[in-house]
Parts: sequence; structure tokens; C-alpha cells
Amino acid sequence: MDSLTPATPPKTEALARRYGADVLPAAGPWNETIATMLDHRSVRSYKPDPVPAGALESMIAAAQSAATSSNMQWWSALAVTDPAKKKVLAEIAGGQKHIEQCPLFIAWIADMSRNQRISNATKTPFETMPWLETFMVASIDAALAAQNAVVAAESMGLRTVYIGAMRNDPIRVADLLGLPPQAVVVFGLCVGYATEKGKGEVKPRLPQSVVLHTERYDASREEALRAAYDAEMSKFSARHELQAATWTQRVLNRLGPIKAMNGRETLRAALAKMGFEVR
Amino acid sequence: MDSLTPATPPKTEALARRYGADVLPAAGPWNETIATMLDHRSVRSYKPDPVPAGALESMIAAAQSAATSSNMQWWSALAVTDPAKKKVLAEIAGGQKHIEQCPLFIAWIADMSRNQRISNATKTPFETMPWLETFMVASIDAALAAQNAVVAAESMGLRTVYIGAMRNDPIRVADLLGLPPQAVVVFGLCVGYATEKGKGEVKPRLPQSVVLHTERYDASREEALRAAYDAEMSKFSARHELQAATWTQRVLNRLGPIKAMNGRETLRAALAKMGFEVR
Repeated sequence: MDSLTPATPPKTEALARRYGADVLPAAGPWNETIATMLDHRSVRSYKPDPVPAGALESMIAAAQSAATSSNMQWWSALAVTDPAKKKVLAEIAGGQKHIEQCPLFIAWIADMSRNQRISNATKTPFETMPWLETFMVASIDAALAAQNAVVAAESMGLRTVYIGAMRNDPIRVADLLGLPPQAVVVFGLCVGYATEKGKGEVKPRLPQSVVLHTERYDASREEALRAAYDAEMSKFSARHELQAATWTQRVLNRLGPIKAMNGRETLRAALAKMGFEVR
Repeated sequence: MDSLTPATPPKTEALARRYGADVLPAAGPWNETIATMLDHRSVRSYKPDPVPAGALESMIAAAQSAATSSNMQWWSALAVTDPAKKKVLAEIAGGQKHIEQCPLFIAWIADMSRNQRISNATKTPFETMPWLETFMVASIDAALAAQNAVVAAESMGLRTVYIGAMRNDPIRVADLLGLPPQAVVVFGLCVGYATEKGKGEVKPRLPQSVVLHTERYDASREEALRAAYDAEMSKFSARHELQAATWTQRVLNRLGPIKAMNGRETLRAALAKMGFEVR
């Protein structure tokens, strides 16, 4: 092994951090890979140190090893280290300083332009292009790939945060990165070493029984379990001096008013201009 | 550690399996987690043995540990072991026998119904629901979660295959699994132990320099590299007695005629009926 895996907590402690000590799921098999994933937290404060030589290539090898529908590989990744470019990307993302600060930013691209080049070279009509299904496959495959890259990065001791705000202005992002038509950045990813302060804490999630159903969808216990999670998240927020709203209130803030979309209700129109019809 | 991680090949061999020996990327850091991901192959032949006790719960703990936009957790998972249900799902998927055969099938759900329940309970209008952006976030977050579950499963020695064909008839799938409106299965996942024959071989992917761009998108070397990949994939197809088409030909078969979509060009209309407007 070329690099040590960072230390991870034992199983019960890892589960308690993720769910709170009162609602531990009946998790079974455990190993260092699972422990690494359980220890995930999104990091928004990075040291200036570059990522190790070959780290990006190891991450992309993991990304390309993820499943891809019919082996079509409808995605690309674009690595940005240029400070001037990262500054513009941070601005597009509404002033997210960690994009400027992280040593490596990866743009994950739903990429149908490669297919268009094959279509052009062979003069074969590309009938399956303009559909929601096609855009979905490209976006989902990009997400599967990116998540493998994240797990690889975290297994090396690096930290990450996804940047959905690339979709605030996908046309400007595409212009900046020189994308051809039919290629769109679906999200970005900051990669680097966390500062001591930025390491943060594992964020609790909904009790497992809220998101995991067996044989049939069943939300009968959801309300009570959500109340327990609200209490857990209020404690988390208090520890981190965040606005002490419950999770339920956060959901309402995010879902209620259209202004919470930061303009992303125009995504479909922007995609159409970029060659994705999304019928 | 409760379970041993299965044996994985050393770095150079793992990279050679994934890319072919002639186009190895300059991968750097390496460890057992990365090796596990590099060893991925989609498996379509399963032993009848059930998954170990707690394996599902460990997979879902990993899934919930993946990043989720604004901590919104807009996804659910539904575990199916009932043979009668799996038989119907296999039929919907165009007769994919491995869905019947695998001991555990997980349906991954873009789930806005939980938000709708919160909206209803608090009488708060849900203005951000009907947009493509919202459906994208739910689908991408489901994909990030599912990929962590896959990595967890593979780290225990289990194998998997994603089933995109749940989107052939999302309404019938939703009816079968008792989903409420505003919840849709975006893809399925078979989980189990591979038969000896079903283990297969790591599938080569496009050379890393085709999918990884630096600072600006650059497809100038793509055509030559694609030709090399066509040759690599022809060898792979011959070894596996598959139709010996090149990868380029497979792309054309999949992209050219609309019939290759198996009816999924109707996805947007189906989603509208299920409460996802996708404006």
C-alpha cells in the first residue's frame, strides 16, 4: 500500500456519530472501507497544501470503475487548479470561498458531446439525444463516478465538498471551462486537506428506518422519528453555533419559497441553450 | 473488524485490468478501499445464499453517509426479498433473470413525498417542487447514496448490478412497491454473492485522458484514443464470446435509433403522472 488509510473510529462509535446514540441501526459487517465512508463530512475550509502526486489519477481510476449504464460512459471530469478560474467559479457559486481555497476543484460533466462527435464522424443520426431519460443517465453516471472519487479521496486522508451551485449559471461555467455544446457541469467538487477548524464533525442523518423501507413503502412511524431527528439536529446546530432551527424548519426554508432555488428554476431553459432538450 | 475484506490485486495489475496494459494512468496513492473500487464488475448471476445479517443495514449506513444537498436527504431505499415481487420487477425490466435470482434487491427512490408530508403537516406551500432542478437533486443524491452502498457491499465480498430498466415503467414499479405520489424508483440494485461463472472480469474503460480534462475541455486526442479503446474492447468481447462489435459501434447502436430507449422516451410524461412536473 502506497499510503496509509486515516484512522477511523470503531463501529459503534461511528454509527453513534452518524445517527445519534439512541437510534443505532442493526449494522452488521464492518471494515475499513465502510468506516471511511461513515466518517464522511463535507469540508469547507482547506489548507493550501496541494493534493499528493497521482491523487487525482487514483480518484479518476476509482470514478471510471463505477458502474455506467450499458458501458456508455456519458461523463467527463475537468480538473481546475488555476486560481483565476477558481475565483470565477466561487463567484458563480454565490461566493463560496472554499472553491478558491481548495487546491483542486473537479467539475463533473454530463457529457453527450463525445457521442455527438461519434455521430458526426459516422453520419449516424442521434435520435436518443433530446430526452429527459438520456440526461438522467448522464447525470446519474456522473454522480456514481464522482462518489467513487470522493471515497478514494477520503481513503487517502483528503476531504471534499460537492458544489451544486455550478447549476446557478451552467452556461457561464461551460464558457469558462471551454465545454462544447451537449456538455454541462452537473456539480463541482472541492478536494484538499481540511484545516484543523474545518474538519468539523460527522453530521447526523435521519434514523435509518425513515429512509429504509422493506417490501413496501411505509411512512407510518416517520413523524415520530422525524421529531427525534429534529432534537438531534438542534443539539448539533447548538454545538456548531449554527442557527438553532430544527431539520424540519430547514426543509421548509429550502422547499417553501421559490427564491430558495437561487435561480435554478431556469435550469431547463439553460440546458436547452446548451444542446440538452430534456423532453 | 467484523469481516475480512476480499483479496484484491496489486495496483499495477488493477490498473491494467481497468485500462489495458498500454494506457495506464499515472495513479498515485493506493489502499484497500481504492483497490476494492477498481475491482468492481457488474454481476448478473447470483448464488441463492442470503446476504449476511446486518449487511443491508451496513450498506444503508454507508449510503446515508454520502453527501446530500443541504442535508435534505431527498431519497429512500426499499429492500425487496419477496420472490413474487422480484419476479414482477424482473419482468418490468425486460426479463432480467438476475433480479429474480439475487437474494436482495434494493429500489432507490427519488423521494419528495417526505417533503410533501412536511408541507402538508405545516400548511406550507411547496413552491420548489415542480422543477427539473429539484428532480435532479433528488436523483443525484439517490445515486451518491447508492454508490456508497455498492462500495460497502463489495468491501464485504458481495456483488451488485444496477438496474436502470426500472424506468421502463416507473408507474408499475411504484404501484408494486406501494410508493406514494412524488416518489419514483430511479434505478434498482441487485445484491448477492456471484456464482463462479458470474464473477466475470473487470471491464476496460476509456483511457483516462479521454474523460479527464485539465483546466479546459480538450478532445483533440480523443479520436485516436477511442480507436485504441475499440481494439481493447474487441479483445474483451472476444474473450467473453460477446458480439464482437467495437465500443464505437455499441455507442451507435445505443444512441442512434429511438427504439434503443425501450420506451423510456416517455419518462417525463410518466413522472408528471407521479407528481414530478419537471418543468
